[in-house]
Amino acid sequence: MTLSLDAAAQNLLFRDARTANAFTDEPVTDEQIQAVYDLVKYAPTAYNQQPLRIVLVRSPEARERLVNRMNEGNRAKTAAAPLVAVLAADNEFHEHLPVQFPAFPQAKDVLFGERPAREASAAFNAALQVGYFILGVRAAGLAAGPMTGFDAEAIDKEFFPDGEHSVLAVVNIGKPGENAWRERGPRLAYDEVVSVV
Amino acid sequence: MTLSLDAAAQNLLFRDARTANAFTDEPVTDEQIQAVYDLVKYAPTAYNQQPLRIVLVRSPEARERLVNRMNEGNRAKTAAAPLVAVLAADNEFHEHLPVQFPAFPQAKDVLFGERPAREASAAFNAALQVGYFILGVRAAGLAAGPMTGFDAEAIDKEFFPDGEHSVLAVVNIGKPGENAWRERGPRLAYDEVVSVV
Repeated sequence: MTLSLDAAAQNLLFRDARTANAFTDEPVTDEQIQAVYDLVKYAPTAYNQQPLRIVLVRSPEARERLVNRMNEGNRAKTAAAPLVAVLAADNEFHEHLPVQFPAFPQAKDVLFGERPAREASAAFNAALQVGYFILGVRAAGLAAGPMTGFDAEAIDKEFFPDGEHSVLAVVNIGKPGENAWRERGPRLAYDEVVSVV
Repeated sequence: MTLSLDAAAQNLLFRDARTANAFTDEPVTDEQIQAVYDLVKYAPTAYNQQPLRIVLVRSPEARERLVNRMNEGNRAKTAAAPLVAVLAADNEFHEHLPVQFPAFPQAKDVLFGERPAREASAAFNAALQVGYFILGVRAAGLAAGPMTGFDAEAIDKEFFPDGEHSVLAVVNIGKPGENAWRERGPRLAYDEVVSVV
């Protein structure tokens, strides 16, 4: 009674959804990813900066380049997933700010003129968007398998040769296959996470 | 047709929901925040590390301490919101790992024994959880007003005197009031965000 979100949506996004390590052969289309993006793009970022960039790794040759840069334990599932997305922060997101945040067009230079401030903001806000994207994949009836075990420097070099992006996560996407997940781990109790002052 | 999530849920979480800067006087109860947590706790983090910690700032004296550490432009709304939550990464999350990730009980020391690796992982994974939390607030029929404009060092000192937490966001929570938001900013086009290789 305390939540407005209906039970089916709670289950789809949170309660029944699981991180998948194995997938069926059913392809994931660009239309599905477009629908995911057209939903999660509305979730908030600071100054509407939207620093997340997504590379869909579709060609066998690009998939191989990626798999070789994943940690050992992530290689087989990254090679086998119907679709793999590389999620990165664009450290030059500020170029879009005059259009994306017209209320304060000077933000581009005043707040984000210096690279360290820009990188920190891109890392945090793109991470928010990684969270939104994972839930968006689930909203499309698909399972996500987000991974952070990889050689980040090598992926940045290989997939973002402009030197202006920082990979945050690699996400396998598809319909969950047989034995797609292990038993769900426990969650911290409310009192371990939330305090009142 | 491409999304499994029903339209009402899409609207509640993404399409109609907005970052609020003004709220009604209606209180936000601990039961509501508990319901939010009991939903979003299921969303994934690496090694099930769950580094997000939440401080609900309820007492007038704590609210004043917080407001004084917000940037000028965030003070009035932080003072007036029915509830304010300080969201931080717990840089000692690894103490929970043997229980939370029993598949690899050595992760606590092998992966996260060193503080820099631990802080980086806590910052990224807690940021994912900030994203989940914002959507969870919306799932409860409430509006969130997330802010990153504050003196982070001062908030860490004031609200986390153990020196083991890093504030990531401060979130105003309540029912949206009159003129709660400005016009929604544009969003980047699909082709500006997503590429295929």
